[in-house]
Amino acid sequence: MDIEQFRKAGYQAIDRICDYYYSLQDRDVVPRVEPGYLREHIPLQPPEEGEDFQVIADDYQKFILPGLTHWQHPSFFAYFPTACTFEGLLGDLYAGSISNPGFNWSSSPACTELEGIVMDWAANLLGLSPAFHNASGVGGGVLQTTASDSALVAVVAARSNYQREHPEVKMEDLVIYTTSQTHSLGAKAGLVLGLQVRSIDVKLEDQLSMRGNALREALEEDKQLGRKPFILIATVGTTSTGAVDNMPEIREVAKDHPSLWIHVDAAWAGMALACPENRSKLYLDDINSFAHSFCANFHKWGLVNFDCSTLWVRDRRNLTEALDITPVFLRTKQGDAGTVIDYRNWHLALGRRFRSLKLWFVLRGFGVQGFQKYIRRCIELNQQFVNLIEFSEDLSLATQPSLALTVFRVVPKPRSPEQATPSAESLNDLNRIFYGRLSARHDIMLTQTSLNGMFCVRLAVGAARTTEEHIRNAYNIVEKEAKAAIETWDQTINGVAIVG
Amino acid sequence: MDIEQFRKAGYQAIDRICDYYYSLQDRDVVPRVEPGYLREHIPLQPPEEGEDFQVIADDYQKFILPGLTHWQHPSFFAYFPTACTFEGLLGDLYAGSISNPGFNWSSSPACTELEGIVMDWAANLLGLSPAFHNASGVGGGVLQTTASDSALVAVVAARSNYQREHPEVKMEDLVIYTTSQTHSLGAKAGLVLGLQVRSIDVKLEDQLSMRGNALREALEEDKQLGRKPFILIATVGTTSTGAVDNMPEIREVAKDHPSLWIHVDAAWAGMALACPENRSKLYLDDINSFAHSFCANFHKWGLVNFDCSTLWVRDRRNLTEALDITPVFLRTKQGDAGTVIDYRNWHLALGRRFRSLKLWFVLRGFGVQGFQKYIRRCIELNQQFVNLIEFSEDLSLATQPSLALTVFRVVPKPRSPEQATPSAESLNDLNRIFYGRLSARHDIMLTQTSLNGMFCVRLAVGAARTTEEHIRNAYNIVEKEAKAAIETWDQTINGVAIVG
Repeated sequence: MDIEQFRKAGYQAIDRICDYYYSLQDRDVVPRVEPGYLREHIPLQPPEEGEDFQVIADDYQKFILPGLTHWQHPSFFAYFPTACTFEGLLGDLYAGSISNPGFNWSSSPACTELEGIVMDWAANLLGLSPAFHNASGVGGGVLQTTASDSALVAVVAARSNYQREHPEVKMEDLVIYTTSQTHSLGAKAGLVLGLQVRSIDVKLEDQLSMRGNALREALEEDKQLGRKPFILIATVGTTSTGAVDNMPEIREVAKDHPSLWIHVDAAWAGMALACPENRSKLYLDDINSFAHSFCANFHKWGLVNFDCSTLWVRDRRNLTEALDITPVFLRTKQGDAGTVIDYRNWHLALGRRFRSLKLWFVLRGFGVQGFQKYIRRCIELNQQFVNLIEFSEDLSLATQPSLALTVFRVVPKPRSPEQATPSAESLNDLNRIFYGRLSARHDIMLTQTSLNGMFCVRLAVGAARTTEEHIRNAYNIVEKEAKAAIETWDQTINGVAIVG
Repeated sequence: MDIEQFRKAGYQAIDRICDYYYSLQDRDVVPRVEPGYLREHIPLQPPEEGEDFQVIADDYQKFILPGLTHWQHPSFFAYFPTACTFEGLLGDLYAGSISNPGFNWSSSPACTELEGIVMDWAANLLGLSPAFHNASGVGGGVLQTTASDSALVAVVAARSNYQREHPEVKMEDLVIYTTSQTHSLGAKAGLVLGLQVRSIDVKLEDQLSMRGNALREALEEDKQLGRKPFILIATVGTTSTGAVDNMPEIREVAKDHPSLWIHVDAAWAGMALACPENRSKLYLDDINSFAHSFCANFHKWGLVNFDCSTLWVRDRRNLTEALDITPVFLRTKQGDAGTVIDYRNWHLALGRRFRSLKLWFVLRGFGVQGFQKYIRRCIELNQQFVNLIEFSEDLSLATQPSLALTVFRVVPKPRSPEQATPSAESLNDLNRIFYGRLSARHDIMLTQTSLNGMFCVRLAVGAARTTEEHIRNAYNIVEKEAKAAIETWDQTINGVAIVG
């Protein structure tokens, strides 16, 4: 494809993306395809000769678009939505056009320098302490692909640091601490590194937040057993329910355990720190005063296209001492002089995308106020959903709503005063029927979760185009499916009763 | 930014990318900026209010473009060029527009299905055995970010597999094997995982290729010492010189060590397997018959925008048994039924970009023949450079050229029959002066390397726009700087002589 052919195909791509966004809310959220659908449309072998780009672009419309789950759809409430903006998309387009794996300063000065600056912008936006800023020269921020990546980097830095201080400790005795509500990134870090993971139980009565006492007990027990906990992955806003671990209590415990690295995973809720009114309940002061590392994902609730996970550390040497490799072919005069950040020593791989460009575009395009406005609107929309649930006959909140996330379930009102309260197991059956009905639909997407054995449904607001109308519509669907589920469940119970 | 504003900004981005490519060869390859340059142009804080996108887009032109090293420049011969194509760029643009972290089938069926198919296309293109195809249902391919990531995944899978078979073995005794010419990914995997790395020495007389005997000796020595080598990272086309480890000999040794996982890193040279004439010298038959995993980077020499690293394994269960985590909120009916690939269990993170789209666009846009034509042209251009070096008075090949890579150095002809042969150290001094001169230039970029203590310069052909003219120009520059370096060196030697 020559430059003029690219101009034509590029204009068409822009036009088709516009069409996509105009049509988005009329599309299904969840595609109507079955496993293996694409094999019917695509041959097993690549073509021998190059094809006309128009044919390729048309095939994208014909075969790929109908097989996509539309994460940008205003009725996408599953997982955590990944709000994508045109500013971010354009940043990625420019970055792609120069395709530059800026792993050190000289391989592309602008990539390193912009990342250094924009990570400080992001730290400012979220209210992080200057200790985490690149400008401090001691702490610093770096873009990673995902929160799993960020956590893995933190665990590696913590392990390396711990091993330097305790060279006699065996790998088999090292333990990563998480809670039973920590994102799968905790278990995955353990799998990847071959280390033990201790998942500390959290309680529904504590809103699934890790408490200081539970942490202290675990630490003491492990000390007795000769195990060496070296990192706690604390969560500010869990995936399941948006639970926030009790950072002030953890801080107190950590004072007695200075070798315990505290990594704060605020992949989703971290974005809410942009609004000062959320900082206290998300324990920002504590994070600023004692966390060793902090992660938040701008690609989740931060208006930047996937992938854009921000990781800050209080001491950058913990990263470079753990990850620095400098073979001859990577040595540069600037790196040798120590005047620049060589970001390759701040992450797992060598090459890296120029991700700071899209973050820069988004932060400038929205400004601090525009960013705050979007976060506040998501929280308000969620509150609107919560209000509807609270007035519902058959639906109940499973936990306190958290920011833009609600976890709820069907708990039918008794039909008569004599009716027995259903067992926990029976209520789970009902909610599985309920979720089964919801997940069979194509016009909305929500996800399930389990809270200490209690089966629930999650609704997360975040797609940039969601409005009050979509929230009302979501509630109407949820209510209708709850009623239908109760009917089926009633019949099952009666059916079982008859057979019995 | 609304949809029509995006259309306008998008058209402009496409136009500016066209301008960029029209002007590329008239630009400097290496920017004229000093560390810290960008801080003079960008405030320390993000703006309070959103800015007009035109201002942002103009700032990209004003402040970012002049600070970029232009990897797509036809005179970029450093590292390994990352050939970027418009087809790949458009694939990334469409993928970004739907911003979809397709970590399992239901989170976006098309993403998983296309990756499954296109990885088989790529395997076909490179001549990989059907055992590695996804269609086999046993082996399979997955897209990773970089070769470091791919190697890390392979090491984790190998370690996990080894530990299942040898549960009594301590982590401290595990050893990763590399050679002294392995990419930094080997050392980094060791750092990340906290495992020992044994770097087996390779010899210049073997063209820096790992030989079977050296591997066998290392294995026997480690057996005596109670160490447990569990993976060998063999390289087909090293970064330094394009050396190819002797896979037939390694295969013989591996027969006696069935617990040793063989990972083949062909990040760069793997692309040359697309041309049948290269398959024998890159030992494709051996790779197909016994390698456990194989990595090649389409973002390097494969016309796809960074990042696009392809990893194949002979047994997908080795990945899923090492990396599978399935919390409740990630369970789906399709995943539970086992009818689909859940790619999140094939890599380190959870979320993943829709990278297969750009690979699909490139393979269709070029076809097998177009892809082969590009690879062959790069090899021919490199051969042209080699021919010029071979006729040069002052320049010599340091090793046999490999595909599209030449490693060379200044070795001046004696000025008179009486002149003493310079020492190895003195020749290194000369070549450091030579490379210092080359790296002070802005119109070309090459990188250095060290071969068992011998300082050399590398020239790698790969940028999509490099022509014969750029090769001749590169040679003229190299020759001129060699002469100038010799002059300085002569003076230094004479100066030292006079002082002595």
